[in-house]
Amino acid sequence: MPKTVLIVHAHPEPRSLTRTLVEVTKTSLLASGHRVIESDLYGMNWKAVFDSDDFLKREDESRLSFIRESGSAYANATQTPDIQEEQAKLLQADAVVFQFPLWWFGFPAIMKGWIDRVFAYGLAYGYKGAGNQYRYGDGGFSGKRALLSVTVGGPREDYGARGINGSLEQILFPITHGSMFFSGMEVLPTFAVYSAGQITDATVDLAERGLKERLKGLFTDTPIPFRHQNGGEYPDRHQLATDIAPEHYGILAHLTDPEGFL
Amino acid sequence: MPKTVLIVHAHPEPRSLTRTLVEVTKTSLLASGHRVIESDLYGMNWKAVFDSDDFLKREDESRLSFIRESGSAYANATQTPDIQEEQAKLLQADAVVFQFPLWWFGFPAIMKGWIDRVFAYGLAYGYKGAGNQYRYGDGGFSGKRALLSVTVGGPREDYGARGINGSLEQILFPITHGSMFFSGMEVLPTFAVYSAGQITDATVDLAERGLKERLKGLFTDTPIPFRHQNGGEYPDRHQLATDIAPEHYGILAHLTDPEGFL
Repeated sequence: MPKTVLIVHAHPEPRSLTRTLVEVTKTSLLASGHRVIESDLYGMNWKAVFDSDDFLKREDESRLSFIRESGSAYANATQTPDIQEEQAKLLQADAVVFQFPLWWFGFPAIMKGWIDRVFAYGLAYGYKGAGNQYRYGDGGFSGKRALLSVTVGGPREDYGARGINGSLEQILFPITHGSMFFSGMEVLPTFAVYSAGQITDATVDLAERGLKERLKGLFTDTPIPFRHQNGGEYPDRHQLATDIAPEHYGILAHLTDPEGFL
Repeated sequence: MPKTVLIVHAHPEPRSLTRTLVEVTKTSLLASGHRVIESDLYGMNWKAVFDSDDFLKREDESRLSFIRESGSAYANATQTPDIQEEQAKLLQADAVVFQFPLWWFGFPAIMKGWIDRVFAYGLAYGYKGAGNQYRYGDGGFSGKRALLSVTVGGPREDYGARGINGSLEQILFPITHGSMFFSGMEVLPTFAVYSAGQITDATVDLAERGLKERLKGLFTDTPIPFRHQNGGEYPDRHQLATDIAPEHYGILAHLTDPEGFL
């Protein structure tokens, strides 16, 4: 069955590896009969900085609380048009593919600013105004899938289980778990192209084929096995039950199978 | 001996907890005889997005490579004045205090964009144009200290060793290890104020006292025990030697003592 996929991408150079892979994503998904929508953050000149201009009608003019104003603007449709438009795209999408170069082990600022501004209170967090009731598997974006497609300057070995940078999936946990899964999306294992600075025609070809293969599984591959908040393993919604994975602390404790995260 | 401290902060509301804590930092450090310089990112209207406008004289007009252009602009003094100014502040500083609200488990976009743009090739990475030779403990910012001071919406228990968000220090690893320690700074354990949305006069007072205490140790406290790349534990500069902490994978392997990171 055809699905709608939103591609959010962040590289201003049309000839960059990131943008080459964006084209691969579009072409592959369209060839599979899917509908593709796009947020070209540099091309759109996306406003990265979340500030008071994002609230057209303030709840409290005397003191800016982002949570309060975000919740009010979302509930009362007083968000800016650019934020509303991105939320509408997100809500139509069955899957979201984020394509970006890994800068300082995270999103480029323009993409972080897309999350900061678009992931409103009442939608992506504080869903239904119910505090922490819906998060980590439930929430405004549940039923959707997410895939990160990243280009990485350093070599693969630097990001392995014993690589000096820390393993890639652990580094991306604030994004995959903390942003995507938090708001309800199921997140696929990251697709990464390493040594992106030294890439040759042969390795571009390999990267393209690797991505095409992954896109075939966009709606069928097994997601990262993050534990759902409301699945019974977090009885008080704050901490993991003491009898669950008692040998793990931190990131690894929040996966039913930590294999891909070492 | 008096030192110079750079405070980089990111909250537009002067009455926010973040900004209250910025004032505490200034006052405390000045009272201790230190010199304080400041980068008020919202106040400065800091340009968050790293793009082609940041390179006044391009090496290659036909294709934008950030690494190449950053290296060239840094080496040839063709960076933009705003980037040069921030680098000059950084180079004067003996310590840098980053004060920000934790948004989606990371920097607000405006602060991520400060890193993206200011941490140039040749200075913060690719130091001396020598590839990966100087990083993780060595590099352009070695001899400096860094401290993150974050305000966090959720309660402390959500960020503990078994807290649902993952432990705070693991979440911040891309910043502390991947950005600050990478470029040579010694990084202190994070100072965090939790439940920042529900804060009362009594808890503000507690937060202020806690921060003052931590600032007293800015130049004497023991930093996070990240392993130095060139200390012998990464013989090939890529992977941790097999006999070092063989029981650990990912983030925890890169600390000589993982206690504070569980």
